[in-house]
Amino acid sequence: MRHHAVTGGAGFIASTLIDRLLAEGDRVLALDDLSRGRRAHVDRFADRPGFRFVAVDCADLPAYRAAMVQAHAAHPIDEVWHLAANSDIPAGIADPTIDLDGTFRTTFNTVLILRDLAIPALRFASSSAIYGDLGEAAIREEAGPLEPISNYGAMKLASEAQIRAAVEAFLPRADIFRFPNVVGVPATHGVMLDFVRKLKATPEELDVLGDGTQRKAYLHVEELVAAMLFIRDRATARYNVFNIGPRDDGITVSEIAGLVRDRVAPAAALRFGESARGWVGDVPRFRYDTSRLAALGWLPTLDSRAAIRRALDEIVRQEAGSSPDRR
Amino acid sequence: MRHHAVTGGAGFIASTLIDRLLAEGDRVLALDDLSRGRRAHVDRFADRPGFRFVAVDCADLPAYRAAMVQAHAAHPIDEVWHLAANSDIPAGIADPTIDLDGTFRTTFNTVLILRDLAIPALRFASSSAIYGDLGEAAIREEAGPLEPISNYGAMKLASEAQIRAAVEAFLPRADIFRFPNVVGVPATHGVMLDFVRKLKATPEELDVLGDGTQRKAYLHVEELVAAMLFIRDRATARYNVFNIGPRDDGITVSEIAGLVRDRVAPAAALRFGESARGWVGDVPRFRYDTSRLAALGWLPTLDSRAAIRRALDEIVRQEAGSSPDRR
Repeated sequence: MRHHAVTGGAGFIASTLIDRLLAEGDRVLALDDLSRGRRAHVDRFADRPGFRFVAVDCADLPAYRAAMVQAHAAHPIDEVWHLAANSDIPAGIADPTIDLDGTFRTTFNTVLILRDLAIPALRFASSSAIYGDLGEAAIREEAGPLEPISNYGAMKLASEAQIRAAVEAFLPRADIFRFPNVVGVPATHGVMLDFVRKLKATPEELDVLGDGTQRKAYLHVEELVAAMLFIRDRATARYNVFNIGPRDDGITVSEIAGLVRDRVAPAAALRFGESARGWVGDVPRFRYDTSRLAALGWLPTLDSRAAIRRALDEIVRQEAGSSPDRR
Repeated sequence: MRHHAVTGGAGFIASTLIDRLLAEGDRVLALDDLSRGRRAHVDRFADRPGFRFVAVDCADLPAYRAAMVQAHAAHPIDEVWHLAANSDIPAGIADPTIDLDGTFRTTFNTVLILRDLAIPALRFASSSAIYGDLGEAAIREEAGPLEPISNYGAMKLASEAQIRAAVEAFLPRADIFRFPNVVGVPATHGVMLDFVRKLKATPEELDVLGDGTQRKAYLHVEELVAAMLFIRDRATARYNVFNIGPRDDGITVSEIAGLVRDRVAPAAALRFGESARGWVGDVPRFRYDTSRLAALGWLPTLDSRAAIRRALDEIVRQEAGSSPDRR
């Protein structure tokens, strides 16, 4: 029975990850400051054996360290899954300290604690945002130059760099997962949830940020977590970096808007903006090369459109109140 | 008459930079916490018109901001040259907060202040350390993957990323200078000063960290500053990244040890370690591709060996007491 610490443990992706780790019979310590994560996301694990939740801000080193020291003393922690981050990119551009504290300082503190407690493995939720806008070509893990165009992307890149240096100095194992856009439930943010809520409020029209031509690849959260566990089990280097994503070229924002409109408010008119970028820090076109992950032996079963369709059904059910995650 | 702020203004490279900026008739505000820089380095400009020094830690945002606000009110600041950083790589590996505060937080604060005061240009002293260990091939600016192997390199990469995001959001102009190993006076640290001092203390032998095969390219500080000013004047993009270095493949540590031995203590025996890496975070072989800078029109006049020879003469004079920088 392994013991995992999951930061950002009340967040969207952690919810699925924790479910899988507990299903494998392992112990899980979830940590979250509940600023963006929700209590309901961890409350649903309250009765599962081996699960424990601590409300703590991982940017607060003394508090974070105390929680980890206590859990480690009870059962030595084998792996840390560092998912805590600021997920609100525009907020981080308006106030860079949000990304500094929420995205980078949490990583910096995590690395310090792993060293102090001699925890041997770190799995990190990185992002396609570290690549910035590299144009139309499919992006491999070794691509350069790395020019993130948001503070979020900058602090994810800073986090990767800090972890890489830790591997050189002391850390036996680190896996860097470069996430794509991820969809599913419990949905807390993102373009689909935004569209669904807008259309429920005003079923006659939907304002779309940007001109709708932004094309991105989407992965369903169940497949994302499956890929993370696959990499954890199969990769063999001390430092492993993997793009995780679907194999297709993605789907445009206007297609997503159309799918949501058809499902939620078929009579709604779609209204688009003029810019190819929806907001400062938005990358209009993005495509991963996932051949490294394919070579390791993992392929997704859903393409971007199928992932969007499945998540749309799930989000509509969530928003209809059949889920405890309803606002 | 332009007004420049130079962080790390009492450091080695800033000393030459400030001399050149003042010679062009510009105003210079030097900022330094004097933790690694030396008072003597700024005292020598005390009588030059337009020069002002403030002792302040640029990681301390309120103090740094207050110094900048005051200077900006007197004469609007046109350009910030951000050279402040922790230069002690092993110290930063032992205690990562040294690089977080000294190297990254100073950049983070600089970017915040540029935004608040609407200062239109930032020039940043980055480093080859952002590339990590990419092997024998000459490294171009767009190389990847970027895997720094020291916290110093990680925080320089984090700084570049933060600046890149600032250009996307608000900053009209940023120049990223990726420094090579730089030699010259006033020498405050580095392999040559280390060798000179060791040989003066024990003229019969010289212990060299690592096996001596580490090969690196060196540029003289006068040429480095000339290249920085050339890029400032000639590059035209909003965000410019340039490797700055000599055109040759560099010189090995054992060759440097031999040159210093011949000059300072010809009878000394050289003793080498066993590892190709002198210390954790050391990159044993490193070679820049500087064709981007050559295409802009700048070429150095000294190769690595000539730069080392010239700097050796200067450092020997400095250490003999003919310089005010003597310890």
